[in-house]
Amino acid sequence: MNGAQALIRTLVNSGVDVCFSNPGTSEMHFVAALDSVPEMRAVLGLFEGVVTGAADGYGRMADRPAATLLHVGSGLGNGFANLHNARRAHTPVVNIVGDHATFHKKYDAPLDSDLESIARVVSGWVRTSSRSEDIAADSLDAIAASYGPPGQVATLALPANVSWSEPAVPLGPRPFPSRTPVSDNTIDTIAQVLRSGKPTALLLGGSATRERALMAAGRVASASGTKLLGETFPARLTRGSGIPAVERLAYLAEFTMAQLAGTQHLVLVDTRTPVTFFGYPGKTSDLIPDGCQVHVLADGGDDAELALEHLADALGSPRDSAIVATASRPDRPTGALTGETVAAALGALMPEGMIIADEANTSGLWAPMATAGAPPHDWLCLTGGAIGQGLPLATGAAVACPDRPVVCLEGDGSAMYTLQALWTQARESLNVTTVVFANHAYGILEFELRQVGAVTGGEQASALFDLTRPELDFVSLAKGMGVPASRSDTAEDFTLQLERALAEPGPHLIEAIVPRSI
Amino acid sequence: MNGAQALIRTLVNSGVDVCFSNPGTSEMHFVAALDSVPEMRAVLGLFEGVVTGAADGYGRMADRPAATLLHVGSGLGNGFANLHNARRAHTPVVNIVGDHATFHKKYDAPLDSDLESIARVVSGWVRTSSRSEDIAADSLDAIAASYGPPGQVATLALPANVSWSEPAVPLGPRPFPSRTPVSDNTIDTIAQVLRSGKPTALLLGGSATRERALMAAGRVASASGTKLLGETFPARLTRGSGIPAVERLAYLAEFTMAQLAGTQHLVLVDTRTPVTFFGYPGKTSDLIPDGCQVHVLADGGDDAELALEHLADALGSPRDSAIVATASRPDRPTGALTGETVAAALGALMPEGMIIADEANTSGLWAPMATAGAPPHDWLCLTGGAIGQGLPLATGAAVACPDRPVVCLEGDGSAMYTLQALWTQARESLNVTTVVFANHAYGILEFELRQVGAVTGGEQASALFDLTRPELDFVSLAKGMGVPASRSDTAEDFTLQLERALAEPGPHLIEAIVPRSI
Repeated sequence: MNGAQALIRTLVNSGVDVCFSNPGTSEMHFVAALDSVPEMRAVLGLFEGVVTGAADGYGRMADRPAATLLHVGSGLGNGFANLHNARRAHTPVVNIVGDHATFHKKYDAPLDSDLESIARVVSGWVRTSSRSEDIAADSLDAIAASYGPPGQVATLALPANVSWSEPAVPLGPRPFPSRTPVSDNTIDTIAQVLRSGKPTALLLGGSATRERALMAAGRVASASGTKLLGETFPARLTRGSGIPAVERLAYLAEFTMAQLAGTQHLVLVDTRTPVTFFGYPGKTSDLIPDGCQVHVLADGGDDAELALEHLADALGSPRDSAIVATASRPDRPTGALTGETVAAALGALMPEGMIIADEANTSGLWAPMATAGAPPHDWLCLTGGAIGQGLPLATGAAVACPDRPVVCLEGDGSAMYTLQALWTQARESLNVTTVVFANHAYGILEFELRQVGAVTGGEQASALFDLTRPELDFVSLAKGMGVPASRSDTAEDFTLQLERALAEPGPHLIEAIVPRSI
Repeated sequence: MNGAQALIRTLVNSGVDVCFSNPGTSEMHFVAALDSVPEMRAVLGLFEGVVTGAADGYGRMADRPAATLLHVGSGLGNGFANLHNARRAHTPVVNIVGDHATFHKKYDAPLDSDLESIARVVSGWVRTSSRSEDIAADSLDAIAASYGPPGQVATLALPANVSWSEPAVPLGPRPFPSRTPVSDNTIDTIAQVLRSGKPTALLLGGSATRERALMAAGRVASASGTKLLGETFPARLTRGSGIPAVERLAYLAEFTMAQLAGTQHLVLVDTRTPVTFFGYPGKTSDLIPDGCQVHVLADGGDDAELALEHLADALGSPRDSAIVATASRPDRPTGALTGETVAAALGALMPEGMIIADEANTSGLWAPMATAGAPPHDWLCLTGGAIGQGLPLATGAAVACPDRPVVCLEGDGSAMYTLQALWTQARESLNVTTVVFANHAYGILEFELRQVGAVTGGEQASALFDLTRPELDFVSLAKGMGVPASRSDTAEDFTLQLERALAEPGPHLIEAIVPRSI
């Protein structure tokens, strides 16, 4: 057995049985070895940003890592931005990056570059495997590292000759490190804070925005009156009817400050203190109100779910006392198609178990509100701010959860970064409906230009936000990659098209012609 | 005047007056400042790989750097692969990468990452500007660094508050370091080698594949009988009727070894000793024949053109003695459309001054031969092996040379990495005709799978080279980005379509349906 075969067998033995792939020459033995381990599913992406974003979406939904197969430093570079987002999401990902044969490195051949240096920027763990005999142990270490806790990107560089050499022996699974229970002392201290009668809030992030954690947080809220806040861009927020509602912090600093105003104790649960996304002239970056004390219930390595349950118990909150969102849906919208009516259509139609990959930026502001009372669903956000995440993320989520419908809410500007994901959706017959908000602008940038005080009416500056020359035609683009697509410019049409797309298996794309919203 | 205004003014003062741009929030003051310096032309790309590849194409043709405008570490990551190619091409490029405001860095905000570490992998020069007062001097240093010699990527990180702060004063141009003349001693030594009567060859690369260097090399060849070889993937090779022909080293090691067999003295002119692209099991990476002595006439920092002229003089070769390629064209092809008939059509129609951006991989093998006697033209290659270069490279070359027609020869697999370049071509009305060789496969990988000895008939492996499920429809994809497109599957149709595309201004795309070729 060669190194590649042992590697793939070891991955599969540990439950890593999906590999999002964009291979090159250095990975040919890995590719050949796939047929000797049929349990491994290789999913081809036409660009590495698709591969890494899909691994992020998969990891968020499956709670175990997918592997990626990337080609040398430049392939890793192409996948960098979505690995950055995965890093911020604490998603477990195992990157396998093929490299030149060890004997070939000294020649600094044209494709060679310093792979490990790029990898280190986005990975919590990096290693180059140097012998076929070590590859199984190296890959187990990579898998273990990817689990953290918290989850992280682990990158294993795989020289071509380590892949093709013998001998190599696969290894079985080993127990991966689990989260640390939070001490009773910490829980008692936080319980006391929440009993103080002062205005308090829990800020939930990371592993604390899933159903089990939220049910416990809801019990904490009902017993103590504390506010439940969520990160601005959670990796995976479970929400909908029957689940305690979390108020996500706003992107805009002025709004966040209003949300936090008066809070005297802020309790962090697997998240960090809130800061502005960017620094702005004359504005503070730190969003904690003056005089507010910050406490940590659980950090990334802690068992936040258990801590919240213990906290609810410490507060004497009964098991079924959580206040939850009630079922409600907006009516099917009529009239003009806008960010708001698209949101209403989604709220009116959303089936149970839907997964939303949200990269709609300015046009998507209304979607969370319109779906707050919809059947339970998961909302996946742009954790790291590197656009080009939505379509790949939806792709990976659909691979992880073939029985759950996925909707990707996508801005037209950001759609163009990793549009190649549509082809993978078609190839794998994934149940993903992509809604592209076609406002023909980098709306967020027009907004930010004003935010940073760089007021300009100038032609060159405005031209850089303008996507009308020429207008992108997403129906043709989708068709070019084998995804059925339609266009709508009224709320009625959009609702019908969305209804049809959700009813039919396989991927669809709807280009929603909307005005600029902010 | 704020930092951004002084920066742009300083760039323009030094002749850097094109900025390929994909900005984000941190770059808003740079964007706003564009209108205060109308001499700067900002060219928008929908993805950073387009931006960096266009800067490479521009620099190769203009012999001066374009600027890029990128957004933080993830934007630089998206542009990494084509910067890698630019690094291998020794193209001067000045990256301006916006970063968080200096006071905001300590918060490790979601979009933050270690920008300098990524930059260092592809840049010969990296600096973060820390005060608006320094930005003009920093940018002059960046421009100087980009010129090398040899040319290189220079990356200037620009914190948002350095952009928006005052005061800042632009600076005028300063002389940039020039290439070093090669010593008479070296030239005499090489002249002696060439006079030895032994089988010799000049291997030309870098700055030695342009017309002036080639005319001198042709004189050297006619006086000494030395063979003129060229790098496998030259950054810019001038060729065609009236210019000495250079035999490029083959990609395939066995062919390269045949080309070099018997050579007893190999003289390097602004290039390195030839090595295989990848390491292969049981094969050598070093392609120098046993017993062959290697000499260096000029390295990257030397004036290779002057050295070749001095060498020709030392050999007593008359000024007009170079043996040059004679004018000849293939007939217009008929019959089946193949890599070979596409090449013939190109050779039959090629006008003077054409620029070829060549990323056709397996399907493009015949194009150089069919155009060897065409009117003089420039051939731009995939220098660093990171695919996704062709369309952006063509875009940048067309911006640099608006009066010269550009043809991009592109594989279907590699086209999908940076297809967004088509939109920029449409927006800027660039005279680029893209020929996509649609063989519906990663042909080069099928070939490499056999090369590395990883023989497999397995389904999973084969599926990873197969682009038929679904078939990409490049006519729709081009239409989606505003580029007129057609499809052809006979040589006659293709020739007519190419003829029309070259006659009409603005961009075109032709999807050439061809069989797999190797």
